[in-house]
Amino acid sequence: PKGMSNGRAVNGFLLDITGVLYNSIYKSDGVAIAKSAEAVDFLYQHSKVKFLSNAKGNSNRNVARRLQRLGINVREEDVITPAPVVAQYCRENKLRPHLFVRDDVLEYFDGIDTSSPNCVVMGEVEEGFSFDRINRAFRILIDMPKPLLITMGNGKFFQRVDGPCIDVGAFAAALKFSTNCEVLNIGKPSRFYFEQGMNALGMKPEEIVMVGDDLMSDVGGAQTCGMRGIQVRTGKWRPDFEKMPVTPDLTADCLYDAVKLIADNGFRL
Amino acid sequence: PKGMSNGRAVNGFLLDITGVLYNSIYKSDGVAIAKSAEAVDFLYQHSKVKFLSNAKGNSNRNVARRLQRLGINVREEDVITPAPVVAQYCRENKLRPHLFVRDDVLEYFDGIDTSSPNCVVMGEVEEGFSFDRINRAFRILIDMPKPLLITMGNGKFFQRVDGPCIDVGAFAAALKFSTNCEVLNIGKPSRFYFEQGMNALGMKPEEIVMVGDDLMSDVGGAQTCGMRGIQVRTGKWRPDFEKMPVTPDLTADCLYDAVKLIADNGFRL
Repeated sequence: PKGMSNGRAVNGFLLDITGVLYNSIYKSDGVAIAKSAEAVDFLYQHSKVKFLSNAKGNSNRNVARRLQRLGINVREEDVITPAPVVAQYCRENKLRPHLFVRDDVLEYFDGIDTSSPNCVVMGEVEEGFSFDRINRAFRILIDMPKPLLITMGNGKFFQRVDGPCIDVGAFAAALKFSTNCEVLNIGKPSRFYFEQGMNALGMKPEEIVMVGDDLMSDVGGAQTCGMRGIQVRTGKWRPDFEKMPVTPDLTADCLYDAVKLIADNGFRL
Repeated sequence: PKGMSNGRAVNGFLLDITGVLYNSIYKSDGVAIAKSAEAVDFLYQHSKVKFLSNAKGNSNRNVARRLQRLGINVREEDVITPAPVVAQYCRENKLRPHLFVRDDVLEYFDGIDTSSPNCVVMGEVEEGFSFDRINRAFRILIDMPKPLLITMGNGKFFQRVDGPCIDVGAFAAALKFSTNCEVLNIGKPSRFYFEQGMNALGMKPEEIVMVGDDLMSDVGGAQTCGMRGIQVRTGKWRPDFEKMPVTPDLTADCLYDAVKLIADNGFRL
């Protein structure tokens, strides 16, 4: 936009993954979003980039491999997802979690005591979700004097190619309704989780832009932490986002367009 | 209790079923609660009685048959459950529901147009509950300009012999979180639903006592409607109920004790 050359420096990019780099398809690798691979290559060459995702179903290794199979050259060590952050939080706070999570992320919890749980960690929706599993989590929480639920993200829905899907935030609301548990989200939009991205980039929030498809979690969350938030019109983006109470610093049709616009402006926004 | 002979007349009884007459066991008939059969026989002989349940998994016929198999002689025509009341509500309000309910209650919705739904009716937990089914309900609600969810009861949990189980109120909270839908509960503690019980007895609320194991839905709900609410220490009763902000008009160890106490007092409380 006009006058943008008066903007502030952009020294680093945090990119959401699902809905920004690729669109997910149930039980398949999904499909790359046009030119996201080029945008990622460009950022690796000309700026600094890390990937801050709420993806809760796969290890960072498998997230990176999937993207590589789609032709998007993301390095495993640059991927941030909630599961290892939650595991580290449990270690530091001597928590014994009941794990309501996907098998693929269990490795992060190796060595953590899960006997007589004093919290529930939830990151499962889709194939491993069942009444029995949420009920097991419920029974553990209802018996605690101060029930604590740690959730990997707190989203209302995620987007698959076949349509929107109810997300873990809804089931956190369900468990809170029935047990009055405290809900601690370790995922966007929590400040604690955005700090993982800032630390990985080694930058202050005002140097960073976050690019995402979720207006509240990505854009609003980043802005609350002092970063700039960029909305892309891919993934879960819906026209009614533009009536909502968060105003992105930039809205672009896709990641590539956002990156090109900022680069053409001398990495200022 | 002392001085109770100064109480008001009790002309009719509304009894909750699960946790008051019997305790439920997953995929079986459950077990009768001691002396509930005698209490029911006594009320049929000496007073008026109807059964106001939030049971959402079975038709009234099958609810009555199950009780009869347990030796509790409840007549089908005296059983009130949400499903037929919801169906009637849909007919009167020209609603086209998406049915997220058990097969056994589908018969009540015969003849109701369910194409291009303009609301969701939810009464399914346990065996038919799945991510796909709640997600189908979510997708219908998220696409409505004014999403409406009708729920058969709004409980936090129900009690099975193996332990407490997260109930439909939690999944209503989940759908509300993700779609901002209006939630209309047709089940206790809604006044509309209690009125079904009052109408069946043909009495004013002040003549009636409601006996239940759920402090909020049964006891609190009845009191809000001008009835007296009796808490029994069976079913889902938990000691911490006695610290909660609803004070029953009477607390008894079981239905039989409550009935005997009121009868011995000349049907006054």
